[in-house]
Amino acid sequence: MDTALLIDHVRLTPILIADPPLLNTQGVHQPYTPRLIVEVVTRGGVTGVGETYGDSAYLELARPLAEALPGRPVTDVNGLFALAEQVCGGPPAPGDGVDTGLDGVDAGGDGVDAGGLRGVRTAAKLRLSVVSGFEVACLDALGKSLGLPVHALLGGKVRDAVDYSAYLFYRWEAHPGGGERDDWGAALDPAGVVAQARRLVAEHGFRSFKLKGGVFEPDREIAAVHALAEAFPGRPLRLDPNGAWSVETSLYVAERLAGVLEYLEDPASGVERMAEVAAGSDVPLATNMCVTTFPEIAPAFARGAVQVVLSDHHYWGGLHRTRELAAVCRAFGVGLSMHSNTHLGVSLAAMTHVAATVPDLDHACDSHYPWQTEDVITTRHVFRDGRIAVTDTPGLGVELDQDRLAALHRRWLDDDGTLRDRDDAAAMRKADPAWVAPAAPRW
Amino acid sequence: MDTALLIDHVRLTPILIADPPLLNTQGVHQPYTPRLIVEVVTRGGVTGVGETYGDSAYLELARPLAEALPGRPVTDVNGLFALAEQVCGGPPAPGDGVDTGLDGVDAGGDGVDAGGLRGVRTAAKLRLSVVSGFEVACLDALGKSLGLPVHALLGGKVRDAVDYSAYLFYRWEAHPGGGERDDWGAALDPAGVVAQARRLVAEHGFRSFKLKGGVFEPDREIAAVHALAEAFPGRPLRLDPNGAWSVETSLYVAERLAGVLEYLEDPASGVERMAEVAAGSDVPLATNMCVTTFPEIAPAFARGAVQVVLSDHHYWGGLHRTRELAAVCRAFGVGLSMHSNTHLGVSLAAMTHVAATVPDLDHACDSHYPWQTEDVITTRHVFRDGRIAVTDTPGLGVELDQDRLAALHRRWLDDDGTLRDRDDAAAMRKADPAWVAPAAPRW
Repeated sequence: MDTALLIDHVRLTPILIADPPLLNTQGVHQPYTPRLIVEVVTRGGVTGVGETYGDSAYLELARPLAEALPGRPVTDVNGLFALAEQVCGGPPAPGDGVDTGLDGVDAGGDGVDAGGLRGVRTAAKLRLSVVSGFEVACLDALGKSLGLPVHALLGGKVRDAVDYSAYLFYRWEAHPGGGERDDWGAALDPAGVVAQARRLVAEHGFRSFKLKGGVFEPDREIAAVHALAEAFPGRPLRLDPNGAWSVETSLYVAERLAGVLEYLEDPASGVERMAEVAAGSDVPLATNMCVTTFPEIAPAFARGAVQVVLSDHHYWGGLHRTRELAAVCRAFGVGLSMHSNTHLGVSLAAMTHVAATVPDLDHACDSHYPWQTEDVITTRHVFRDGRIAVTDTPGLGVELDQDRLAALHRRWLDDDGTLRDRDDAAAMRKADPAWVAPAAPRW
Repeated sequence: MDTALLIDHVRLTPILIADPPLLNTQGVHQPYTPRLIVEVVTRGGVTGVGETYGDSAYLELARPLAEALPGRPVTDVNGLFALAEQVCGGPPAPGDGVDTGLDGVDAGGDGVDAGGLRGVRTAAKLRLSVVSGFEVACLDALGKSLGLPVHALLGGKVRDAVDYSAYLFYRWEAHPGGGERDDWGAALDPAGVVAQARRLVAEHGFRSFKLKGGVFEPDREIAAVHALAEAFPGRPLRLDPNGAWSVETSLYVAERLAGVLEYLEDPASGVERMAEVAAGSDVPLATNMCVTTFPEIAPAFARGAVQVVLSDHHYWGGLHRTRELAAVCRAFGVGLSMHSNTHLGVSLAAMTHVAATVPDLDHACDSHYPWQTEDVITTRHVFRDGRIAVTDTPGLGVELDQDRLAALHRRWLDDDGTLRDRDDAAAMRKADPAWVAPAAPRW
């Protein structure tokens, strides 16, 4: 193989990026949230870029992997999993933490999570998220080296644009403890949510909507969804309380929103509860919490617990694995959509490339991107009619802005350690010192 | 995208290749069997090669697909499925023929098959086999254009050699109606099977064995497997009667070969019968008959009907789809191995590349290759210790021998039509005019 495709070195750059005061069932987004930028530099002088979670636990796993990569070809992305197992430590298989469906805690896990919104937590899951950043960087480097877009490295796009939904949040006007301020104002009631949706539509053209719920009592969130349905008749709507409800409450909400929701996302926590909700309602259930690894699929599908899996290439270990997840869902007649956590333009490019190659992506993808005013790429992505065009530019089609990257890294360096691990409950305590992240089910 | 990667034209070359008088439950292999060689030529002047079934029905589907390809990039293999649906006609989805498990006949199928050994038959399945030949040719062309081996286009190899098993057949010394003759002699009893195995081991180093059964009454085949177990202690052994047995007979055989067989392959026909056998025996069941398309997976897995799926990139629609099948099996804890029908060196290269990328290919792959003395490639593959080394040569790593190809095509042209569609029952009638392919279960 051409030695130009061998990895020369890898640069890891942890950064802190501004994040608005978006509310969820755990608390509120911190004013700054950590991300990790992975740069894979080939001997041919090409740099590929990837992006993943940047909390300390991820960073600790990323460092030995970065050190192990030089000399390996960027084509060798299948081999990253065994390599990561070998050099990063932790349990041997990505499926050691099969969801028990009961307590949301995995006995073998090390308890680190990204905002507490990711279902059960295991070291193996963290490792997959780390691998995803390296896989995307390798594919970007390979694509740039060959003059091919990343989608072509995945068998080619089957659509020219990928549909995204407007990601609506209950939010405050400003962070309680200070931080970047934007002009979106608060959204704490149906009128506020609809106003937020209207502005997102005006600016980006979105044609479907997802409301992050689990923040207020269920009737208040039901009212917000009804207000959205009235404001945007016929548009797909979703509600996601991140597992905050009991089975009883989930069924109560499902009954009131039947015929209104495209799907209900993680109403209850764990496969058992989700299966009970699914058995009692015709509203399709989606998840990015009880099915986030391959070993979690079989028991969940056998129980009919989920009708839509929200893929996330960070969770699942990269773009190839995301395509494999899509194939599993397709084979079992389960729908596929895409989850998003706070991310920048590198990951949005990766999401768009892989989504473009999946034939039956029948729902608009989620993306936090409109809430991220800072970025590390030279030219921000633009949504047109709620869509991102699939680029044929080599690699991901993005270029790092090294000055911006350095500035955001400087912010990470300057932090005293309090923001380097995302903790929405801690951020909430700035406003409510007595706050503890509520145990599920909250309602 | 680089216009050098656009397809300029496609050449389809149907050929007839010599095949020994190998016996199976349907009859006997014809002296010559049809294959189709697909050459995809790029505007950059690179030729990629693929190989698939060559019966008339496949050829009829391949022609419109070949005409539709010029101007499309060779990277666009995901798009081949929708294109084939569009230009080849037939049912819209590859899963219209879900196995009923009862009669082996699909109401929507057109009744064309490759030797009657492929489970239920649908036009959509044929189309997938045709697409596989084009997909492999595109990947070969892409790899040659980029200087990358096909495995690197699939995310990279995770092993340097792929293990194959010795494919043992009951066979006659010569074809009843004439044809090429080899020096293998007859193998019609345990001693003959063991002698055949010894020679295959001596010549190729195989370390596991598969016996094609369903030819003689079960006790006779059980005796052959016991003879193999005695001759090759500790080596993995398989027996494949192609669904010729009732549930009762399957359980009878399984009981007598428990602890001897690595797995029992398609003892009974259809998911229902396979599930009954699986429920009554601890011997793992493998299939390349009741699960040959994605929609057949869910009902079979739900019933616990199969413990090993024998992938075949021709059946499943190519190398990307084979990797997807592997992912589905992995997610459900079902084993993966590889099926083979009569094939040449182009397909063996494709099999080896994709097998090299699948992490949990825990069983040796099947291959008819040692029985094919003719080939269309310039340098035949060599098994060492039963393995094929995974090449890093660009593309598949094989080159067509155009003179040999022309000669085998000439044989196809000269045929009066009787051999252009494989029909093992018709071949058997040369020896036994009263022969009709037995309905399952035969025993």
